[in-house]
Amino acid sequence: MTLKTGQERAISTDSARDRTLAEDLFAALRDKTGDGIGITRASYGEGESLALDIVEAKARALGLQTERDAGANLIVTLEGREPDLPFLACGSHLDSVRQGGNFDGAAGVIAGLSILAGFKEDGFTPRRTQKLYALRGEESARFGTAYMGSNALFGRLTSADLAAKDARTGDSLVDCMRNVGVDVDRVAKGEPLLDAKRVGGWIELHIEQGPVLVARALPIGIVTGIRGNLRHRVVECVGEAGHSGAVPRWLRRDAVFATAELITHLDRHWRTMLERGRDVVVTSGVFGTDPQEHAIARIPGLVRFSFEVRSQSKETLEAFYDLFLTECGLIGDERGVEFKLDRRIESAPATMDPGWIQRLKSAAQGLGLPDEDIPSGAGHDAAVFANIGIPSAMIFVRNGQGSHNPKEAMDIDDFLAGVAVMRAAIKEAEQ
Amino acid sequence: MTLKTGQERAISTDSARDRTLAEDLFAALRDKTGDGIGITRASYGEGESLALDIVEAKARALGLQTERDAGANLIVTLEGREPDLPFLACGSHLDSVRQGGNFDGAAGVIAGLSILAGFKEDGFTPRRTQKLYALRGEESARFGTAYMGSNALFGRLTSADLAAKDARTGDSLVDCMRNVGVDVDRVAKGEPLLDAKRVGGWIELHIEQGPVLVARALPIGIVTGIRGNLRHRVVECVGEAGHSGAVPRWLRRDAVFATAELITHLDRHWRTMLERGRDVVVTSGVFGTDPQEHAIARIPGLVRFSFEVRSQSKETLEAFYDLFLTECGLIGDERGVEFKLDRRIESAPATMDPGWIQRLKSAAQGLGLPDEDIPSGAGHDAAVFANIGIPSAMIFVRNGQGSHNPKEAMDIDDFLAGVAVMRAAIKEAEQ
Repeated sequence: MTLKTGQERAISTDSARDRTLAEDLFAALRDKTGDGIGITRASYGEGESLALDIVEAKARALGLQTERDAGANLIVTLEGREPDLPFLACGSHLDSVRQGGNFDGAAGVIAGLSILAGFKEDGFTPRRTQKLYALRGEESARFGTAYMGSNALFGRLTSADLAAKDARTGDSLVDCMRNVGVDVDRVAKGEPLLDAKRVGGWIELHIEQGPVLVARALPIGIVTGIRGNLRHRVVECVGEAGHSGAVPRWLRRDAVFATAELITHLDRHWRTMLERGRDVVVTSGVFGTDPQEHAIARIPGLVRFSFEVRSQSKETLEAFYDLFLTECGLIGDERGVEFKLDRRIESAPATMDPGWIQRLKSAAQGLGLPDEDIPSGAGHDAAVFANIGIPSAMIFVRNGQGSHNPKEAMDIDDFLAGVAVMRAAIKEAEQ
Repeated sequence: MTLKTGQERAISTDSARDRTLAEDLFAALRDKTGDGIGITRASYGEGESLALDIVEAKARALGLQTERDAGANLIVTLEGREPDLPFLACGSHLDSVRQGGNFDGAAGVIAGLSILAGFKEDGFTPRRTQKLYALRGEESARFGTAYMGSNALFGRLTSADLAAKDARTGDSLVDCMRNVGVDVDRVAKGEPLLDAKRVGGWIELHIEQGPVLVARALPIGIVTGIRGNLRHRVVECVGEAGHSGAVPRWLRRDAVFATAELITHLDRHWRTMLERGRDVVVTSGVFGTDPQEHAIARIPGLVRFSFEVRSQSKETLEAFYDLFLTECGLIGDERGVEFKLDRRIESAPATMDPGWIQRLKSAAQGLGLPDEDIPSGAGHDAAVFANIGIPSAMIFVRNGQGSHNPKEAMDIDDFLAGVAVMRAAIKEAEQ
């Protein structure tokens, strides 16, 4: 990390202190929640509770107040000079997928603890009260629903969510929540466990789950927004099966050729939108002819495929979706096939707060660090906070090998750079 | 059928006689080999043997000589004026797929019997001896190998072919052949059961198994050649899986987008080749992402697909195959994926004899019938005869609904038109 001279001394003190704390905590988490392959901190389960305990013990040892809220999340508090003002929250989640990596979620919790502990130790009392949330239940791997912890905070878990079962153990989410101390009666009633008006902001540091920062050789990125999506789980392209030797091109209604053309046209539109500066990614993750009737020598009469477009902009999502429908119609007419769409599923994009984006960028510039924009493709608790109206921001830390696997590769120096930027921005806001 | 005046009387006599014979025989076959849904005449099995018996009884009743050869096929003979010359053979096969249609194969046998019976009744003795072959074992449905009957005639069944088993009963081909009277010792030794030099030609009438004659409103077509093919059973497109939200376009190695582009480029090349008058059809009948790892929100890292190109021209096959390899290389480089090909499988095209094509066309013109060229996309016994060097020809009869199903729809008038053309061409050659 290259630092500007004026701030060098203070930052390097912070940095040494942050490094020790982070190395200790990551090691303890790996040690206590390791499963032999990666780490497992099941949402509303044992490993997650262990992780909360580890962080809580460290926070207390550092002289900070801790508590568990009605959602059984860990809260670490540093009181501000004007405690009646809405507080500034930071943090992330401590659960993981099975055999996951040690940094996904935990990095944001440890970053928050470093900052609060540093303020405490340095005798810096921020204007607003600062609260670190070590959230439970962010990962969808166990119960099929993501952001359970943050949604529960705002009374947004449905009865269907609560009834969902762990496929391995058969335990329901509501039972697992109750077991770790969540006030499930309030959650079931849709009662907020936290008054959103009391939350003045949400700042979350997280490892990048994609390869962009690695590819661009940037240690950190400032998140501009969290992509929403429009999806169809199954689109059917219905053509007509036939003998592959006996039907000439002009009489074919080939579902594979039609769908291949559709995908290729969507790829062109995607490229065009990128050239115009739009944020968009397009995926057809599940694609196939019908195993009941396909054969090498048979013109495929049916293809089923999934469609997904993601963007930070609702307008871009709808614009791309219109192109998708138009292409389905044109190619359907041209090739004598029909594209049949199942129910459209949507998830709204979340915009990060412009004031906080600016504060984080200034802090990065001040520290001689890059201040590049990066969209978040994966979802995060920050999207829940942002969509409820709380000014929210995220910092991504470079990470190789993706996430949700034991090979996650976050360099501790990159993490420390992210913590430094986050600290400087909060300090600037809370002078 | 519109007939020219000069030939009208003779033809209409033939036609009435042909109609009665055909209606009787198709009805008897449907009656004796019906299975409640379609007809079933299993290769080297009961229904096939019944069909041979029905045709043989009718041939004898019409005063023709019959015999079974060492391949257990039925042969009906009308001796010619110069019996030492190689004989002219006609016919087709009498087996069917399970729950198949009544016309696939049987039409060619009944056509041959009509012609020989008509010559006999009219006292016309052809120059060369005429032999009708009612072949066994053309369909690949039971043992996975096609043209078993004609290949056995020329010593071309392999020990792997003979060991193949009916998936339903577990019976091997060699046992089933033995049971119906095939001299399996000779077949196993690869000894020809018929001296190809004794065969002066092979004429086969067959229903069209594609939709071209229906679409073009033509009762018959003159086959120019039987398409061969080049295939890969499984091509793997290997890219890299990833989070569908977190990886931007420039870092993707998406196997579905890459393969869709490949198929779309092949479609363009196909269209260009057709514009240049080449005969070619291209199919990817089996196509899919990996069910073990695909998901809507996962960039697909693997696609498996089949590749098949068919043409009457070996040169066209090879030219298209070269384009395929080139596109795999270019798209692979462009998109960071690799196309991995399994073993290339090939089946040689068969060219129909130009002299016989001309004779059949003249006959059609003489009868006021269309003489349109049509390629055969499906394989036929005629390909075996042609590729062993015997001048061969085929007439296709219009047929709706494809083949290998009970809905085959051949109009008897179209069949009679095909018989009339075949008879006139043979008569012309054998004056």
